[in-house]
Amino acid sequence: MALTLRSQHGCFGGKMGFYSHRSKETATEMNFSVFLPPQAEKAAVPTLTYLAGLTCTEETFMIKAGAQRLAADYGLMLVCPDTSPRDVAPAEQDGDWDFGSGAGFYVDATVAPWSQHFRMYSYVTRELPDLIAAEFPADPDRQSIFGHSMGGHGALISALKTPGRYRSVSAFAPISAPMHCPWGDKAFSGYLGDDRAAWADYDASELVKRAEERLPLLIDQGSDDQFLEAQLKPEIFEAACAEAGHPLELRRHPGYDHGYYFISTFMADHLAHHANALGLA
Amino acid sequence: MALTLRSQHGCFGGKMGFYSHRSKETATEMNFSVFLPPQAEKAAVPTLTYLAGLTCTEETFMIKAGAQRLAADYGLMLVCPDTSPRDVAPAEQDGDWDFGSGAGFYVDATVAPWSQHFRMYSYVTRELPDLIAAEFPADPDRQSIFGHSMGGHGALISALKTPGRYRSVSAFAPISAPMHCPWGDKAFSGYLGDDRAAWADYDASELVKRAEERLPLLIDQGSDDQFLEAQLKPEIFEAACAEAGHPLELRRHPGYDHGYYFISTFMADHLAHHANALGLA
Repeated sequence: MALTLRSQHGCFGGKMGFYSHRSKETATEMNFSVFLPPQAEKAAVPTLTYLAGLTCTEETFMIKAGAQRLAADYGLMLVCPDTSPRDVAPAEQDGDWDFGSGAGFYVDATVAPWSQHFRMYSYVTRELPDLIAAEFPADPDRQSIFGHSMGGHGALISALKTPGRYRSVSAFAPISAPMHCPWGDKAFSGYLGDDRAAWADYDASELVKRAEERLPLLIDQGSDDQFLEAQLKPEIFEAACAEAGHPLELRRHPGYDHGYYFISTFMADHLAHHANALGLA
Repeated sequence: MALTLRSQHGCFGGKMGFYSHRSKETATEMNFSVFLPPQAEKAAVPTLTYLAGLTCTEETFMIKAGAQRLAADYGLMLVCPDTSPRDVAPAEQDGDWDFGSGAGFYVDATVAPWSQHFRMYSYVTRELPDLIAAEFPADPDRQSIFGHSMGGHGALISALKTPGRYRSVSAFAPISAPMHCPWGDKAFSGYLGDDRAAWADYDASELVKRAEERLPLLIDQGSDDQFLEAQLKPEIFEAACAEAGHPLELRRHPGYDHGYYFISTFMADHLAHHANALGLA
């Protein structure tokens, strides 16, 4: 698989790289970013993938979250894909900020025209990890995943749908029950059609009820998040975890909102959570 | 002085705020940002002002540099002004990225039309500190300053021209000798006219030769910085410091470029430098 290195920057003793490649899943060029910690010069290292939220790109997390310092300490590779295919026909870009470009929702679309390119679930859980394992000094047996908002939803469903793949999962302010909020309703009806049984296969609050494994699971949620009540609904996921007997550490933080000032504040706790599960702490 | 709070965000136990106010110096609205560490709830805290580079705003440093975590540990207020007035006539915005809007160069312009609004030197060294002292829990006797690129130049001249004002100064990849590079030549001839004696009054490599005080002075410079040879010229400033007998810690870092991945990597060293001078370490 041919990779294009678009730019590279020294960062905390390691290397911050921005790449593109031709994806088989999306049948487009896809962009992603990789932080290689200094330890990766000598040995394969564990991988922590971050899925970003609506309107974000593969750059957002790497610029704003302040994760590289800690990843360099632990010896952890950070990987962040873009949030959707980009070089698609204008009709597939969609003018809305919460659907189409920048809003792939980490599902495999089944409705035309989206079904042709918007296959972010398979891209994130299969194609990209295979590419990382082939092209970077990654230990494919030690992977974890986390994300924010739409990407928090993506991280939860990726972990819940692929038992044995990830050692741990965490999320900042995830869309916890997409079948029960306007963002999820719009995305799932657009990408998946009207059959709500198909929706349940991408809803963490449904998937956790049939989960085959128990993963270390941390969620941080700002109490002053402007999207908390209408879109995020952690209480539905919390109840589903309780019903399923799945452990969940859900922390609510007064005074914090939905943005990266919130995320960066609790980043150290998330990296410690994953480093512990990956045998690095 | 009336302040408008445009937005506020919880961040590392403190508060990240974005403000605007009517400036007397620039005769426009001006934007700035303040990070209040948790310690500021109970007592006045020292202030560290950051001056950003070309094309940046009051948001760039706060989003990208990863400084709030350390400022919250030390109990240090962070202040960052915008890089120029914004609501000026179209002719004063200038279409260039390295002159006019986003490129105030931290001088008081003497050439029309710039002389009416582009008074960033007086704004940064007088009006803004006075405003911060009046409106925030700041200890005006404990101030330091730093910056990046054009803002590194701004930090150096601000400290060198106001003996007694700042306890310490530092810079990431500063424009060290603006009289001898294309960016400085364009800015100084545009804002100050053809009299090179006036230019020398805003050139750190000239000012250090007549400095009245000795300040703790740290400069970090990436060896792979794409602007190093043509624009930054730390060797001229280094020679001027040697000639003047002014102490300088100038560190060159192979593998690092001009961007915020470089800045964030060495941020902890700069905050420690200032915290030490401000009696916090």
